[in-house]
Amino acid sequence: MNVPAEKLKAQLAAIFRAWGMSEPATEATSRVMIAADLRGIDSHGILTLPLYDELRLAGKLEMKAEVRIMAESPVTALIDGGGGLGHYPADMAMKLAIDKAAAAGLAAVGVRNSNHYGAAGVYALQAAERGLIGIAMTNVWTSSMVPTRGTRAMFGTNPIAFAAPAAKNPPFCLDMSTATVAVGKLKLAAIRHEPLPRGWALDAEGRPTEDPKVALLTRRLTPLGGTAELGSHKGYGLAAMVEILCAMLTGAWYAPTRERRHPGAKHFNVGHFFMAISPKAFRGEGEFELDLDDMIDALRTVPSADPAQPVLVAGDPERAVIAEREKTGIPVPELLLGEIRSIAQKSGAEAMI
Amino acid sequence: MNVPAEKLKAQLAAIFRAWGMSEPATEATSRVMIAADLRGIDSHGILTLPLYDELRLAGKLEMKAEVRIMAESPVTALIDGGGGLGHYPADMAMKLAIDKAAAAGLAAVGVRNSNHYGAAGVYALQAAERGLIGIAMTNVWTSSMVPTRGTRAMFGTNPIAFAAPAAKNPPFCLDMSTATVAVGKLKLAAIRHEPLPRGWALDAEGRPTEDPKVALLTRRLTPLGGTAELGSHKGYGLAAMVEILCAMLTGAWYAPTRERRHPGAKHFNVGHFFMAISPKAFRGEGEFELDLDDMIDALRTVPSADPAQPVLVAGDPERAVIAEREKTGIPVPELLLGEIRSIAQKSGAEAMI
Repeated sequence: MNVPAEKLKAQLAAIFRAWGMSEPATEATSRVMIAADLRGIDSHGILTLPLYDELRLAGKLEMKAEVRIMAESPVTALIDGGGGLGHYPADMAMKLAIDKAAAAGLAAVGVRNSNHYGAAGVYALQAAERGLIGIAMTNVWTSSMVPTRGTRAMFGTNPIAFAAPAAKNPPFCLDMSTATVAVGKLKLAAIRHEPLPRGWALDAEGRPTEDPKVALLTRRLTPLGGTAELGSHKGYGLAAMVEILCAMLTGAWYAPTRERRHPGAKHFNVGHFFMAISPKAFRGEGEFELDLDDMIDALRTVPSADPAQPVLVAGDPERAVIAEREKTGIPVPELLLGEIRSIAQKSGAEAMI
Repeated sequence: MNVPAEKLKAQLAAIFRAWGMSEPATEATSRVMIAADLRGIDSHGILTLPLYDELRLAGKLEMKAEVRIMAESPVTALIDGGGGLGHYPADMAMKLAIDKAAAAGLAAVGVRNSNHYGAAGVYALQAAERGLIGIAMTNVWTSSMVPTRGTRAMFGTNPIAFAAPAAKNPPFCLDMSTATVAVGKLKLAAIRHEPLPRGWALDAEGRPTEDPKVALLTRRLTPLGGTAELGSHKGYGLAAMVEILCAMLTGAWYAPTRERRHPGAKHFNVGHFFMAISPKAFRGEGEFELDLDDMIDALRTVPSADPAQPVLVAGDPERAVIAEREKTGIPVPELLLGEIRSIAQKSGAEAMI
């Protein structure tokens, strides 16, 4: 069933209010989640609602989280998310980075004591929409990515998003995990009984596996690059970089040592990192945007190996989905629809879809 | 032949002085080049001297380059490299970023009108040695990397370096190109008559090739990920991000459109981007460094798939080489030794090796 974005957003908001979330947190969380669905990043939108409900019921997610600025300078800030969902403190952090960078040329804001924050690209784009370069990253509370040569998962999919405003083109927007693929792609291959490309996943001994059932059992993803031969140490290094900026720099926790260092902790203490850069601190008015157009235009003229598959620029696939979904609504699988309705009912929220 | 680092550095300095480079530029360039060799990044150290000589003789490299700060704020700066080699303006830019970040918490410095600057990791490490997180990137004046689905090279190997200080461990230092492999690896495979791993390079039609001779002819490298199936759109996106920060943000030139937009230009106008972040702007004294130790220590305990190949942390391979080369000197192949001697002689510099 397709549901109009606004209706779906209202349903989410009703549930969050029923869960006890503040009005600003309700607004930010439902807006950011629906933005992911509109962009076609289905894994990071409404699909995560049942997970949030589980974490909430398990006492691992604060619904009345107190979000506070712990430290601040003209170009930096540190926000404590109070153990709640990440969308609201992340939205606040990105806005703070944007305001500071618009005034000072550059700013970085960290968030700690947070949780899942949805799609990184949604935050980076906020900066581009304000004429700035935006960067958003997060660490993850579970490990799924195995370092090159290793046998044990030591990082989450640690995403990097980077957005930049052009003059006539829509913003450049890279939104990527530092793993080769997501667990969702392993599931799809298992359902279809298709072998995995070598380099997607590892077996329990750290060897590449092409069996989707083995891969789903071990859940050991590879860093971008896939195999040592193809440079997976680079994806591993990028994942570690994201961890350093999101966890070590903010005081969030590193999943593999959380249990040992913080035994019995109620929350996961996830961390995020945001940055904004003003082109005006470096270039004359409009010059950056015109030069970015020049690059984007050049990329669009590159002949493709297969005429049916043109060369794309980061952000293109998502924009195609947005155009479609703004017209026809967001497709909600039957199973998920039932789950959302059931969560609304259990929570005492009005059922709206 | 192995030559002690200091002796090799003195030889380079003598040549640069003979070329007319200023004393500060001579010092920075020889120091940064030798640092690359000491780290085992042979492709970015003394090996590049013959290329610099060629560019100089072709009038494409200014020897008496005037390096100037064009714009400056407490947290940003833009440096014009005056059309000379990149090492000196890059060294100046990183130092400026470090000083500003030490005072304000965060800083970014761009360089334009520059050229090859050696190994990115050498600059990022300067920040880590001062207790800060360091980032260094550069674009390239020739294109060798083909965007996913494409048939034409549209980026250089656009490297990213990221360094961070730990408490008891040596700094974390990622220094990676955003391409799968360098052209040097294709050459090595061709010499050894070995097939290329699928995903290293493309033929003229943009299809993966395993023939090193075809690959050397077309010089079409893949972005990190290697193939569309393994996520090369991410490496492509990272290369574009580096281009945006190094060229569009600084006013440097994008290689594929340089001839059209700046016909007959003498210089390549390469751009670099540097950033430094102070952990003290976010964490209490020493907390960041201890948490980074915790992550590095955890990574070192991961069992490896092959006991002969332990899991490494970014910076490990380079440190092993430094320890060796500080004792035994830098290995200089016979051919290169002859070239350096000949360049010294032609330039009227004292021959010291």
